[in-house]
Amino acid sequence: MEEFNTSIYIDHLSLDCVIFGYQNRHLKVLIAQYKFNSKWWSLPGGYVLKTENLDDAAKRVLKERTSLHEIYLSQFYAFGAADRIVGSTCRNALVDDLYRYNPYQFTPEVLYWITSRFISIGYYALVDCKRVTPLPGTFESKLCWVNFTDIPELMHDHNTIVIKALYNLRQNLDEKLLVFNLLPETFTMKEIRDVYEAIYDRDFPMNNFQKKVLDLGVLERVGKKYSGGPHRAPYLYRFCK
Amino acid sequence: MEEFNTSIYIDHLSLDCVIFGYQNRHLKVLIAQYKFNSKWWSLPGGYVLKTENLDDAAKRVLKERTSLHEIYLSQFYAFGAADRIVGSTCRNALVDDLYRYNPYQFTPEVLYWITSRFISIGYYALVDCKRVTPLPGTFESKLCWVNFTDIPELMHDHNTIVIKALYNLRQNLDEKLLVFNLLPETFTMKEIRDVYEAIYDRDFPMNNFQKKVLDLGVLERVGKKYSGGPHRAPYLYRFCK
Repeated sequence: MEEFNTSIYIDHLSLDCVIFGYQNRHLKVLIAQYKFNSKWWSLPGGYVLKTENLDDAAKRVLKERTSLHEIYLSQFYAFGAADRIVGSTCRNALVDDLYRYNPYQFTPEVLYWITSRFISIGYYALVDCKRVTPLPGTFESKLCWVNFTDIPELMHDHNTIVIKALYNLRQNLDEKLLVFNLLPETFTMKEIRDVYEAIYDRDFPMNNFQKKVLDLGVLERVGKKYSGGPHRAPYLYRFCK
Repeated sequence: MEEFNTSIYIDHLSLDCVIFGYQNRHLKVLIAQYKFNSKWWSLPGGYVLKTENLDDAAKRVLKERTSLHEIYLSQFYAFGAADRIVGSTCRNALVDDLYRYNPYQFTPEVLYWITSRFISIGYYALVDCKRVTPLPGTFESKLCWVNFTDIPELMHDHNTIVIKALYNLRQNLDEKLLVFNLLPETFTMKEIRDVYEAIYDRDFPMNNFQKKVLDLGVLERVGKKYSGGPHRAPYLYRFCK
């Protein structure tokens, strides 16, 4: 097996993707477990090719790990603390694990490169979990959805990256209309509210919520959803920006 | 004069500061003119030391150029198009100008480094122009305030960086309460509105505006401003977060 080729990438620059998923009224995040040590978990990420636009690198990583393309991916922050990798508690153990895993691929030069200082550019996306088949990267044993509330300890500063991504997702939810990517062609007000409640992890009283969402000016009322049950049939809406 | 020492900086990583200023009801931006060719204007920026936190590098640049510290400086975007420097229309002319200006400082190796690919991290600040004495950098003939509407053509993608910074400033104005840094200890509602109108470049009808600002919940009414003139004395407010 060949040495991991670091020379095609920009030194000291990486990216990390916080891929939020929604399913069964839960907000989830895609995280990766490493082959070389099952206790290491991290965000799916990668490096930037010397000839590649930063945004294209993020799209490439998203596509490699989820098969999704043409997904709205938003850059939200550059993480640049000088000690975020070098001072990370797991750095030395990581070097040992990688070398033990494959000393031909992870030569001392490669290990030095991988564990040197990195400025990492954070991107987030919000997708429907059902549309994604997670594909682990070369050095990952699995890539899986975990509920936001059950995220384990991640490597380096990745837990901080996730929290900052959530803050940005919430801040931009109304303006970027990301929620409507998660809903079927027609949906009830309750279905929209379920997504908001999962993302904000709080209740939205229906009257205020309905007004707020209708004020976005992007919904068209298309009829009623008859269930045949004893309750009043709710209105159905369609997204029509 | 010594060769410009590039070895202390992280390769391919720069930062650019969009320092917004407010004076006489105008929004301004601090821009630099180069010594080696007076037709080149750019944002004040710099490189990141190998041992320096990214945010500290931005604070250093802000302090070097404005003498200000403890100013709220907000990171807003990483500009990473592969051709943003390499494909810039001014790149070749820039190399010629720098070499002509000082071939001892700008050796071919230094010129290659300076005009290679850079990912630039954008930061913005909003300050009171009266508190700033702009200090040109080593290679700049002047650093001066220009009205936002009069910004000339800047190098590389710096005009785009300014526009993106303004978008972020506007988006975060209410939440980050940046406006109150620009006002004296007590101020009238009209003085707050003047700042908003300068930043958004539009009118804010007073009734709605007053409600919106009071709803932020950070103002205390402290009395009336008696001018002795024929008009009704307006209320004075104090910022009290």
